[in-house]
Amino acid sequence: MAKSPARKTGTRREMISLAAARLFREKGFNATGMRDIADHVGIEAASLYNHIRSKSELLQEICFRVANAFTTQLNELGNKPDLNSLERLEAVLRFHIRMWVEQLDEVMVANNESAYLEEPYNTTFQNERKTYVRQLEQIIEEGIRHGQIRSVKPYVVVLSLLSAVRGIEFWHRTKKNVSIAELESAMVSHLIEGIRTNPSVPGIS
Amino acid sequence: MAKSPARKTGTRREMISLAAARLFREKGFNATGMRDIADHVGIEAASLYNHIRSKSELLQEICFRVANAFTTQLNELGNKPDLNSLERLEAVLRFHIRMWVEQLDEVMVANNESAYLEEPYNTTFQNERKTYVRQLEQIIEEGIRHGQIRSVKPYVVVLSLLSAVRGIEFWHRTKKNVSIAELESAMVSHLIEGIRTNPSVPGIS
Repeated sequence: MAKSPARKTGTRREMISLAAARLFREKGFNATGMRDIADHVGIEAASLYNHIRSKSELLQEICFRVANAFTTQLNELGNKPDLNSLERLEAVLRFHIRMWVEQLDEVMVANNESAYLEEPYNTTFQNERKTYVRQLEQIIEEGIRHGQIRSVKPYVVVLSLLSAVRGIEFWHRTKKNVSIAELESAMVSHLIEGIRTNPSVPGIS
Repeated sequence: MAKSPARKTGTRREMISLAAARLFREKGFNATGMRDIADHVGIEAASLYNHIRSKSELLQEICFRVANAFTTQLNELGNKPDLNSLERLEAVLRFHIRMWVEQLDEVMVANNESAYLEEPYNTTFQNERKTYVRQLEQIIEEGIRHGQIRSVKPYVVVLSLLSAVRGIEFWHRTKKNVSIAELESAMVSHLIEGIRTNPSVPGIS
């Protein structure tokens, strides 16, 4: 697997952010209080304010950190002219899988709680998401034009790809005997072979 | 499209159940009060108790109605020996898509709020879900043995299928110019071709 998105760890500030992500995910943004976050980190509620101004600030940080990770990776792929559209889409899918494996709390908060972002952040976040989805659709459209991807509806393919990886939440709870590598390989194979022209059975590495 | 799951409509009792599903989905089970439900239906909170005993009873009804719809459909498919495993799996997927299109509130509540079921209902529901997932895995295993499905990890395929359809929530909000028929056809094509042996490009009807 490629390197994971960078994140600093260990500072008090980062511990607060991780605690917020866990609690926002489990209880929801609305039901989480500053006291819950303080308790989770093991500090006094009052000292939280030495590090952050508000609960909203924490939500903003989490949502935009996730959005930035996805956008940055997509931009980096744009600088790799040796990749064709299907390979580009596969790389995006692999990145999503790794984010759901490694940063479950943050990704779920960005998915499920972003509606609670205050303005102007809410609009910014929704716009970024639309741009991101549009860029994925364009990769698929290009792949169809170049004959790497068969004639599919880009809108529906993006919908299915971005949702299929949400199943990884269930994997975290059950795991069974499926390793991360097996999970990634099987999911990529299923979802990429499903749109490849002249698929190469039995699958890609 | 085949006929939708049967549901009686129009009775006060049914209106209460629909209102509860909408509110449990939008606000969450915990944050929804009996008064919210009464307001939504347009009756006095006190008269709610002429129809139901508790909020928990409504959650139970919603969750088990959804679970029964899926289980019944799977059982009916078991009585159709003319279908091979891949066709069976495709029929299951189409049913899931229709449920997400037609009963979004109920399906999302069964997915996201079932953790709030009281015992013994919580355990029953979780067991039913496990059995259902296991049956889908067995269909895939059988399809692999019979050469209709290529060598894939059944656990991961079920994960991807059941999660991909969750993207239909996003379709409800955006829709764009994609009809229900197009949505179903495109999603089925992507997700079924992805596991078919010797896929038939460009897709199934």
